[in-house]
Amino acid sequence: MVKRVSLDHSSCPVARSLDVIGDWWSLLIIRDALEGVQRFTAFQSSLGIAKGMLASRLRTLVERGIFEQRPASDGSAYREYVLTAKGQALHIVVAALRQWGETQLYGPTERHSSLVDTLDREPVAPLTLRASNGRSLEWSDTRVIKVDAARY
Amino acid sequence: MVKRVSLDHSSCPVARSLDVIGDWWSLLIIRDALEGVQRFTAFQSSLGIAKGMLASRLRTLVERGIFEQRPASDGSAYREYVLTAKGQALHIVVAALRQWGETQLYGPTERHSSLVDTLDREPVAPLTLRASNGRSLEWSDTRVIKVDAARY
Repeated sequence: MVKRVSLDHSSCPVARSLDVIGDWWSLLIIRDALEGVQRFTAFQSSLGIAKGMLASRLRTLVERGIFEQRPASDGSAYREYVLTAKGQALHIVVAALRQWGETQLYGPTERHSSLVDTLDREPVAPLTLRASNGRSLEWSDTRVIKVDAARY
Repeated sequence: MVKRVSLDHSSCPVARSLDVIGDWWSLLIIRDALEGVQRFTAFQSSLGIAKGMLASRLRTLVERGIFEQRPASDGSAYREYVLTAKGQALHIVVAALRQWGETQLYGPTERHSSLVDTLDREPVAPLTLRASNGRSLEWSDTRVIKVDAARY
């Protein structure tokens, strides 16, 4: 991760989130875990990532409470990496990245994977901002209120 | 951006999105733009980023169709960076990062900025996955259908 400043103490939640998971590989590892990958070798073959790089990313993600390590469910000597509740809550971020990619980055004839409702295999609806009463909001209907002038 | 492989041709929209915007600085620049920042010097002072690094990120984001450059609205010699529709559509990704940070990364006494409905200044509701008929979905109610075995 190439960083110039740590945003660990930022009062902006976007900045603080990026400080924790704003790394290309970390988000792909989390995506794989959300799709059921649990073993080191499975992440490795799915991502085509160097062993050392995967190990360091997983170690950091465990330290940050995104993953926990546990013995393999089949009783073998392997250890598995399982998303914590904190890690699983990132499914909305991953789904938002997916939907933006689907609508903005694919040509009409290009195929892509899809996130579907298990029940009827229909694609999940586009994520939308909503007011506290459920009213649908455009970005222009919202604003960000800062804590103070110091921010990133 | 440290990259080992390009995911430009990936059939996974998450990977393809990260290929375009999966850089810590790029997402902070987009966040600032969503909050109204338009001038080079304003991005620079908001982010505390080196001039050369900001220039290269903005150039890349223009090339990728996230921003467009236009003459300053006040008739001065400055040029402004304005999000395209493609760039503005990233507000859901930024909002998802914000909400995850708000719920997972702040202590009970820590203050943070908030995304609110302009109308009543109430915080925007948590983003949730929904089925095509509007039914609320947990992550475990969904699955990802792959195009084929080759993926990242």
